[in-house]
Amino acid sequence: MNPAASVLLTDLYQLTMLQAYHDQGMDGTAVFEFFVRKLPECRNFLMAAGLEQVLDYLEPLRFEAEDLEWLAASGRFSREFVDTLADLRFTGDVDAMPEGTVFFADEPILRVTAPLPQAQLVETRIINLLQFQTLVASKAARSALAAPGRLLVDFGLRRAHGAEAGLLSARASYLAGFSGTATVLAGRLWEVPLYGTMAHSYIQAHGDENAAFEHFARSHPKNAVMLIDTYDTEAAAERLVPLARRLAAEGVAIQAVRLDSGDLAQHARRVRRILDGGGLNGVKIFASGNLDEFRLRELIASGAPIDGFGVGTRMNTSADMPYLDCAYKLQEYGGEARRKRSEGKATWPGRKQVFRRFDAAGCIEQDILTTADDAAAGEPLLRPVMRGGQRLPDQPRLAAVREYARRQLATLPEALRGLDPARPFQATVAEPLRALAQWVDRRHPGTAA
Amino acid sequence: MNPAASVLLTDLYQLTMLQAYHDQGMDGTAVFEFFVRKLPECRNFLMAAGLEQVLDYLEPLRFEAEDLEWLAASGRFSREFVDTLADLRFTGDVDAMPEGTVFFADEPILRVTAPLPQAQLVETRIINLLQFQTLVASKAARSALAAPGRLLVDFGLRRAHGAEAGLLSARASYLAGFSGTATVLAGRLWEVPLYGTMAHSYIQAHGDENAAFEHFARSHPKNAVMLIDTYDTEAAAERLVPLARRLAAEGVAIQAVRLDSGDLAQHARRVRRILDGGGLNGVKIFASGNLDEFRLRELIASGAPIDGFGVGTRMNTSADMPYLDCAYKLQEYGGEARRKRSEGKATWPGRKQVFRRFDAAGCIEQDILTTADDAAAGEPLLRPVMRGGQRLPDQPRLAAVREYARRQLATLPEALRGLDPARPFQATVAEPLRALAQWVDRRHPGTAA
Repeated sequence: MNPAASVLLTDLYQLTMLQAYHDQGMDGTAVFEFFVRKLPECRNFLMAAGLEQVLDYLEPLRFEAEDLEWLAASGRFSREFVDTLADLRFTGDVDAMPEGTVFFADEPILRVTAPLPQAQLVETRIINLLQFQTLVASKAARSALAAPGRLLVDFGLRRAHGAEAGLLSARASYLAGFSGTATVLAGRLWEVPLYGTMAHSYIQAHGDENAAFEHFARSHPKNAVMLIDTYDTEAAAERLVPLARRLAAEGVAIQAVRLDSGDLAQHARRVRRILDGGGLNGVKIFASGNLDEFRLRELIASGAPIDGFGVGTRMNTSADMPYLDCAYKLQEYGGEARRKRSEGKATWPGRKQVFRRFDAAGCIEQDILTTADDAAAGEPLLRPVMRGGQRLPDQPRLAAVREYARRQLATLPEALRGLDPARPFQATVAEPLRALAQWVDRRHPGTAA
Repeated sequence: MNPAASVLLTDLYQLTMLQAYHDQGMDGTAVFEFFVRKLPECRNFLMAAGLEQVLDYLEPLRFEAEDLEWLAASGRFSREFVDTLADLRFTGDVDAMPEGTVFFADEPILRVTAPLPQAQLVETRIINLLQFQTLVASKAARSALAAPGRLLVDFGLRRAHGAEAGLLSARASYLAGFSGTATVLAGRLWEVPLYGTMAHSYIQAHGDENAAFEHFARSHPKNAVMLIDTYDTEAAAERLVPLARRLAAEGVAIQAVRLDSGDLAQHARRVRRILDGGGLNGVKIFASGNLDEFRLRELIASGAPIDGFGVGTRMNTSADMPYLDCAYKLQEYGGEARRKRSEGKATWPGRKQVFRRFDAAGCIEQDILTTADDAAAGEPLLRPVMRGGQRLPDQPRLAAVREYARRQLATLPEALRGLDPARPFQATVAEPLRALAQWVDRRHPGTAA
């Protein structure tokens, strides 16, 4: 059972609303936008990700015959309404910031324009897809900024929240600047470079650590990475030296060692000394174990001779902030702008655009949040990606997205690149949008707070 | 593409180790156990969940022809090894704590006994499945303990980490005591009761709030829940009273109202007064918005007249601790117990069992962690669930698991039921297991730390 392929992976209220829209004949054009209300304090910026999967979801969207039977049998819906669902397709337009774009609070990163029932139905899964990859890309980008030039590998599939989270966190972290992943399927699907070492169980099954190393190297004569902390890290490194030299004579090279426990900086220094002392200057040191951007910064600042890092759990659960205060909100219906005014959750109405201005050094200077038809100066960040339910040609491949994301990170002002909380960057709300909000509030005074 | 169905949803190192095991002819019987090393401070107990999905994964496990072609083409593996993968099936045994069992640090909740390559290959996905549902069930159980007798509905699909996390968190929270979910597919797959209301967009699309309420009620004449906070909560409640009475005369009943913003306790009190004053004593009040077990405790302690709660994001991301310090470790190979002794990560060796003893009131008094062949007094918690790759008949259905989980929660000592950190409950390590650990360490002194 593939939950991602089922249109029933949605909230019940989408369907109860669709029944009511059907009964009232409400199928005018609706505009919804996805945005983050407020950045978490521990994030100075976010990086948009997940758009490709949203388009993958919208294009083939349909109810299967068994779905319809089940809905009809549930007793919640009229047969007539259920029958209309058989023909439901997504025929709308999508405009979005390209994946890899850096963005901030209140800025829409995706806009859906479609008949109301279609635009409503897809809310749950669009949020589900955009939030998660944005969360992981934003977290991973912080590691990329903290450890420039180091090998960074996603190790987190096992503690990601389920299958899709594991797979997509390999994609999102690579997009944001990681070097690759251990998740084989991400290599298969998107050509994300794969990295792998060995587990402690491999050493334990052999009992004898040296035999385990030798067997592994002979099975992988070009790229063996030896896990050396199962019993005693330095003792293992010492024993590896004569083995590596013996194997080298036969053309079998040991690429690296991996440290996974204890004081990583201290072990790395000692192991580097042992390896160099034995003439193994070319053998790299790779470290893993509860790493995140703060530990990377610390290890690098300490001068620890570590060449690469496996970063898992904390990155792909976005452990210090595992969710975003994000929403997909109706901004226009039947040609008329709308807004929600719930306490503490009011939104800016209408179709919007974000224009970005840069300083002389190429860094972000100002984001202007305004109406979509305003012609503010700057680079418009939302672009057409789908028209009439068909994705536009020339959507970038993952490698191109990754390169774009790298250039995006280079546009961050110094303060926002840091790991510590900076003064929040906030888009400037332009006059046309303020005027629209006032117009909307005057239009529905009877229901105003 | 269904990532959950692909055997390539695993870490690369599983495959590199399998190549080496193949080259060495290492296919003896291995025993791995899954356990949590240390409970997070914010959890006084954990609840086992995810076993059904583990068995669903193991039974049909196989490499597809395209997987094999791709692996062979990758250049990382020998053709001969890749060819052997075509016949790989899971033929092993699984013993496990039933889903819904309350457990603690160091206690294995699942044991795999299988030829080494099989037992190794499945590590990544087994951790991925058990960790996530255990995380959510454990978090959801806290809400169930904090809000006894209240309706608790999983609202979190949209902010869960991907499709599988959204779907499985509906399952795990229901198992742990929630009343149901908004996730339609969970209703379809497991008959989890479904609940749904309406979104703010529904109100906004109408512009006129009263018209929106009336249309919705007429479309759902038996179970309409009205979202009343889009503009002004109390004003909406006031206007609902005459509408509800008018509709009632036509046989259309309003079941409940939903509050989603502002001071929920205060709004609930005012709305209850308005509804009761209008004779709508039967209309329930349902609340949602950033809820977790702490907010539930607070709202209930304040005496707020709230009948049910929608709990989402924080529950199904397990926001205060989005991962567990868990592992799947080799405990025996070729008939000989093994252990890992890495700094701070040493494990108890061999096949283990947990025996539980209860006090006169039926509460957990002591857990004894010992060798599987020890005959300690108490209830053995791990039971056979799969033999020779086939699941044993009579695996419980979800409703039965939920009932078992409810009885499990009733066995928690008072201190461990509370939301605040209690003194950690720790299993007693029995003498036979201590003796085995010493024997293992003596057996491999050369590699000891």
